Parts: sequence; structure tokens; C-alpha cells
Amino acid sequence: MSDELAQQVTTIAQQARAASYALATAPTAQKNAALEHLATLLPAASERLIAANKLDLDAAEANGLTAAQIDRLTLTPERLDHLAESVRQVAALPDPVGAALETTTRPNGLVIEKRRVPIGVIGIIYEARPNVTIDCAILCLKSGNAAILRGGKEIFHTNTAFAALLAEALAAADLPAEAIQLIPTTDRAALNTLLKLDELIHCIIPRGGEGLIRFVAQNSTIPVIKHYTGVCCIYLDKAADPTLASAITVNAKTQRPGVCNAAEQLLVHADVAATLLPQVASALIEAGVELVADGRAAAILSTANLPHGIASDEDLRAEFLALKMAVRIVDSVDDAIAQINRDSSGHSESIITTDAATAARFQAAVDSSAVFWNASTRFNDGFEFGFGAEIGISTDRLHARGPMGLPELCSYKYVVTGTGQTRG
Amino acid sequence: MSDELAQQVTTIAQQARAASYALATAPTAQKNAALEHLATLLPAASERLIAANKLDLDAAEANGLTAAQIDRLTLTPERLDHLAESVRQVAALPDPVGAALETTTRPNGLVIEKRRVPIGVIGIIYEARPNVTIDCAILCLKSGNAAILRGGKEIFHTNTAFAALLAEALAAADLPAEAIQLIPTTDRAALNTLLKLDELIHCIIPRGGEGLIRFVAQNSTIPVIKHYTGVCCIYLDKAADPTLASAITVNAKTQRPGVCNAAEQLLVHADVAATLLPQVASALIEAGVELVADGRAAAILSTANLPHGIASDEDLRAEFLALKMAVRIVDSVDDAIAQINRDSSGHSESIITTDAATAARFQAAVDSSAVFWNASTRFNDGFEFGFGAEIGISTDRLHARGPMGLPELCSYKYVVTGTGQTRG
Repeated sequence: MSDELAQQVTTIAQQARAASYALATAPTAQKNAALEHLATLLPAASERLIAANKLDLDAAEANGLTAAQIDRLTLTPERLDHLAESVRQVAALPDPVGAALETTTRPNGLVIEKRRVPIGVIGIIYEARPNVTIDCAILCLKSGNAAILRGGKEIFHTNTAFAALLAEALAAADLPAEAIQLIPTTDRAALNTLLKLDELIHCIIPRGGEGLIRFVAQNSTIPVIKHYTGVCCIYLDKAADPTLASAITVNAKTQRPGVCNAAEQLLVHADVAATLLPQVASALIEAGVELVADGRAAAILSTANLPHGIASDEDLRAEFLALKMAVRIVDSVDDAIAQINRDSSGHSESIITTDAATAARFQAAVDSSAVFWNASTRFNDGFEFGFGAEIGISTDRLHARGPMGLPELCSYKYVVTGTGQTRG
Repeated sequence: MSDELAQQVTTIAQQARAASYALATAPTAQKNAALEHLATLLPAASERLIAANKLDLDAAEANGLTAAQIDRLTLTPERLDHLAESVRQVAALPDPVGAALETTTRPNGLVIEKRRVPIGVIGIIYEARPNVTIDCAILCLKSGNAAILRGGKEIFHTNTAFAALLAEALAAADLPAEAIQLIPTTDRAALNTLLKLDELIHCIIPRGGEGLIRFVAQNSTIPVIKHYTGVCCIYLDKAADPTLASAITVNAKTQRPGVCNAAEQLLVHADVAATLLPQVASALIEAGVELVADGRAAAILSTANLPHGIASDEDLRAEFLALKMAVRIVDSVDDAIAQINRDSSGHSESIITTDAATAARFQAAVDSSAVFWNASTRFNDGFEFGFGAEIGISTDRLHARGPMGLPELCSYKYVVTGTGQTRG
């Protein structure tokens, strides 16, 4: 790559770091003023934004993107209103910065406050959804972090128009415009430079397909918080309530099959499978789900005259993101736990049972970001958890796990007050 | 490297992952039983351990290590007793695993518990201090994590003897011996394999010199929690109490100059420097400290006839780890903040002032893991903070910042209890 491009990316990161100091101590009212201004600008600038978006849509059509892909790229006045509303919602959320998380007084009189502070500079690497630009920018701003945005080439013109608006909103609130910057190229070389700037950027959050996330994780010297998608499991225990079992399984599988907290795998206890599986399978089939079964499950489905395929080894750890589900029989809750810990992606799992001890065992031993008892995996979500906003659902274990809201975009520091203490 | 070696390292990691599931739900009493057994074994096995240690000491002598280096490698019966005592102390600490960090009930009735859980499998990469083997192993065990230890070649025989003891202690408590494993080679190729096993190992903690930590950070696809050393600053405000200023600066600089929370840089407010700097400088010089000064500080020290050198640009961001300190004059607290945020390593800083508003401004704006007011930087330490144990002091912002005790070796998961909730 050209030295000039590398220098340009480095300068952006240096400016972001400088802006991050101002943002870290900016009062809540000032950050909210920028957000409120942005909420006003979004509909006001709709003509400009939609004109920029049209350049991306024309290119998308020329490049043969599918209608569904093009729809995801498209801005409309309604979608801009919806974005403005989400900006106002983030403005209304409590400011996570500055909270005293714990305060202790030591025997020598030192008062130690663990105080929540912004992380610093956050890089967001994403693909083609224009709302990610605004969502991530406003969450970083509210949590006092400078943001560097690097979106996909499919929405480059849209993002450039958004970036101008974001700078305008920041300036209107007397905050540095460099607090939110867009990398002004989608050149892969610029991304490679960015991912090595570990002295200036403190955290990278990739949003998009698994390929993008793996590329970022493998090429970054900056810590990456990964948001992989989910291979989520439902386990129907021998003490499952059949009505709950059907309702929850159908909801977790079909309510929105293309998202990470949708269920992909169904495990049924052998003792009750002969009656419970046909009942739940009928409900799934009625909801349009294609079933692929292991040997024992297939035998039960065949006896019940229910249509099904045979699950391949890949099916038994697949993320279908579609109306398809793999079914297997397990011999005990511990067997279910072992198979889930081996084959799931550690995202969201649920046990359906009336037996509290079995549920407790399952919830303790299943190593996933959220483990549900008698509820749908679809609830593993920042809004459903009451966070008010989320930047994604972390599949990592370090820093943040599961839904990431504003507090999860923060670090902490120790603020220690003494009266002259020295160490002996 | 040979495929065989790569396979061997992978097998160790697979066994560690399997053991981590058992450890994650192991009762406190069982983990403590292993620790108590280890505390008994350490002195009981002292002959074996000291014999193994002698092999390392002989090699160290043959390789021309310095007396100080050899001393750090050396095990004695007294040091083993001391290690056993630290094992007992960790056994006595509260178990961090399983605590409910927050519990909320949602409007739909879902009860969401954020529960502290072990991270999983932790890799510790370190150099030549044999106590690190035991310290890290017991902290991982108590926090329910499986540990993979990779120590330096200088203590390979000692570590091998320790590893056998650790396995014995685990087995005595009916815990899997694979919960704590030593990589049985110091071949760099084995380390490179280890650092890529991101499906099996969840966190790497490198302990040692900056070169080792950088190597690990740059070659790992596993998240790394870095423990770099510190360029720590003391700022003497215009409202500093002169007696406190001298006492704290001398303590922070000289009480143990070779450690990461020792002070390296002294900043003095211009308004009071003419009288305050000579006073503090005299105390430092009396304590054996060599001063290197910027232009303005040098002029004041010259006028006061106090010996000093001229600080180079490198000196003004140096970690001396010795009885040497750089001195500069600043024009305001904001000037001090800007210089500290630019030149420190973000580890530990202190302001000396009687002005509460200035202290608050400094503590809010300085971006370091611990920011002290009227106290020595030497207190940035897990034991001094009351954590009871520490695995190190993180210079990262993600996951853990500052002293890392047992809770910081944990992640969390959401345990959600419902009554049949589905998502609409």
C-alpha cells in the first residue's frame, strides 16, 4: 500500500485519540446535545442522504446484488425517522461514565473508588448495513468513546454522507468532530494499517459475517470483541411440560430464523422422546420447519409418520439461519450438557423442564453466554435484557459476554484518595 | 516444527478444555482441598524440588547468568515454606465463582441473573521465576479455570517437578490432573502453536519482560491480557503540601525502584517550583536518586546548587526501574494532565495538592489504571487494594485494568429463568 494511505489512517487514529480525552470528561448534557442535534439532522438532511444512498443502490444493482441485499442498503424517509428515534432513545439512556462501581476504605485510610470510564478509541469494522454507522457512532459517543468507523464498499457514499452529519452534530455541541470519523476508503490495505495501531486504538468491534470477523481477529494487534453468530440449542428434559416445550421450541426456531439467537438444535431426553418429540415436531413442521434427525430421533419420527431428513455430522453443529432444525436424542441432562458444550457455539441455550434441580444443573454447567430455563433463546438480546441499546452480542468471554450495552463499552480505573500514605 | 509437537500441544489444550468443564462447577471445598494438599506437599517434597532446581541452577551458572538472576531462580526450604503459605492464603480467600453480580426481573417476568463464572482455559506464558508457576496455578485453580503453563527454559526442571506436585494435589482432591498442565518443552514452535489455539484456550496472560509480552501479543489469536511495566508520574501541584510532596515522591521513587508502580517522572507546577522543587529534590538526592531535568527544572536546580543532569527526550518517557528520576516544570494542572497522558504508560500517577477541585480534575482526566491523590503510586497493587492475591497488574483496558485478583480471572454468563416466555 502507499505510505500516504498508511499515514492518512494513522492521522485519523491520532486525531481520534486526542478527541477521546475531551470526550472522556464531557458532561452528559453535552453528549446528549450532540445526539439531539443528530436526531434533528437525520430527517432534515433526508434529501442529501437519499441522494448519496442512490449512488450506492445504483452500484448495487449494477453489481447484481439480490433484491434482499439491496433492500438492506436502502434508506427511505421512514427509515431515517426510525434512525432518528433510536438516536433519541440513546440520548435518553443513563450515562454509564463516571459511576462508582465499588468504593472501599483500606485499613491505612486510603479510599479506593473503582470508577467506570470510557475505553478510549473504538474501531468498528462492518459491512453493508447503513444503520450500523449511526447505531455504533451514537453508542460510542454516549459512552464517551471516540469511534473510527470502517464500513463496506457497498455503502460508502451513504456512510460518507452520514459522517458529515455526525461531524456537524458534534460541532454543534462543541465536541471535537474527530470524535467520530469514517475511514475515507474501503481499501483493504487501510484496514490492515488500522488493525495494527494498538498504541492509539483500544478495541475493535467487527460487525458482520463470520469471514469478516475471522479476518479482523487474525490480523489485529488490537483487542477484538467478537460477535460471531450462534448455534443455539433447546433441550427438552424428561420433566418437560409438553405445551411449553412446543411453544418455546417453535418460537425460538421460527420467530426470526435468520438471527444469532434463533435455535438450531433440538435435544430430547430419551425417556420421553417417543411421545414428546412427535408432538413438538408436528408443531415445528406445521410452522414450516424442515427437520433433520439423528438415528434415534429419525426412528421416532418415522413411527409417527412425520417427514424428516437424516442429519449429517455437519447438521448437528450447523447454524442454519433458516427454517431447518436438527434433532437428536440424549440419555440424560449430563449427556445434553456435554453435547451442547461440544456442538453449540456458546451463545444461547434453553432447558425446558419442571424439575428445578435439573434446571439448576443445566444452567450451571452449560458454558454459554445465556442459559435459559423455560424461556425462548430469542430473549438473549440487549433490549430484551433491559439494556436500552446494544452494540451486539459478544461471543467472547473477556471484557463483555452476551449482549453489550453502554456499560459494556466502558472500562474502569481506580481513583484513590489519601492523606499522605506511603508504602512501608 | 514437527507435526508431532503441534499435536502434543493441541492434545494438552484439548485436555485442559475438558478439565475446565469439571473445574467450572467444582465446589469451593474441593478446590480448597487441592490447595491445602499442595501446601502440605511443597515442604514435604522439598528434597525433590531442590534437586530439580539444582539442575536449573547448574545450567544457569554454566550459561553465565548473573548472581541476581541465579538468586531469582533458586529454591530454598524457606522459599518453599513461603510458597506453601501463599497457597494457604489463596485457599482462605472467598471463591469468586457463582456470585450473582446483578439480578433483574423484566416486565415479562423473566428473571435475569448475571452470574460470575470462570473464563475457561487460561494460558500463562512466563520467564524464569519459579514462584510464578505456583502463584498462577493456584489463582487459576481457585477461580475455576484450567491452566496451561509455559515457563522459560531457565527453570524447566524446577517447573517439571512443580507440575508433578500440582497433578498430585489435584488428584488427591479428585479433580482432573489436566486442570493444570505444563507445556513439556520450551521450544518456541510449541509456543507458536499454543498461541493459535483460540478454539480451546480463552485467554493468554504473559508475565515477564516487555519483549516477551510484545511477542505474545503479536503472535496470538487468543485474547491477551498484557502486563506491561509502568512509566509512573508524580505531579506536585501549586497547592501541594511540601512535606507530603517530599515524603510521597521519595517513597514512590525509592521504596522499591525496580517495580512497575515505582515513580519515574516528577512534574512540578511552575508557580511553586522555585521553592518546592529544591526541597523535594534534596530529599530525593539524599535518598540516592539521580535527577535529570528539563530546561526550566535544571535552571532551578542549578540556582539551588543541587546536582542534576539534563533530561533527554527519552528520559522524559523512560521507565528507569532504578534510582533515577526525570523532572520537568508544567504550567497548570491541565498541562500536567496532557503531558502525563502523552508520556506516561497509563499505569499509576499521583497528584499532591490540598486543592480538592484540582485533584478531582486530575483524577477524572488522567487516563491511567490508578490515579492517586496525596498517596504513593506504590499502592497500585492487588494486596494493597485488598484483593488478597493478584496475578499481575493489567495495563490493558479490556476485561481487567490495574490489579487482577480472583474476580478478574472470571467472566460471567446470564442465567435466565422463565415460565414459558416466548418472543412476540
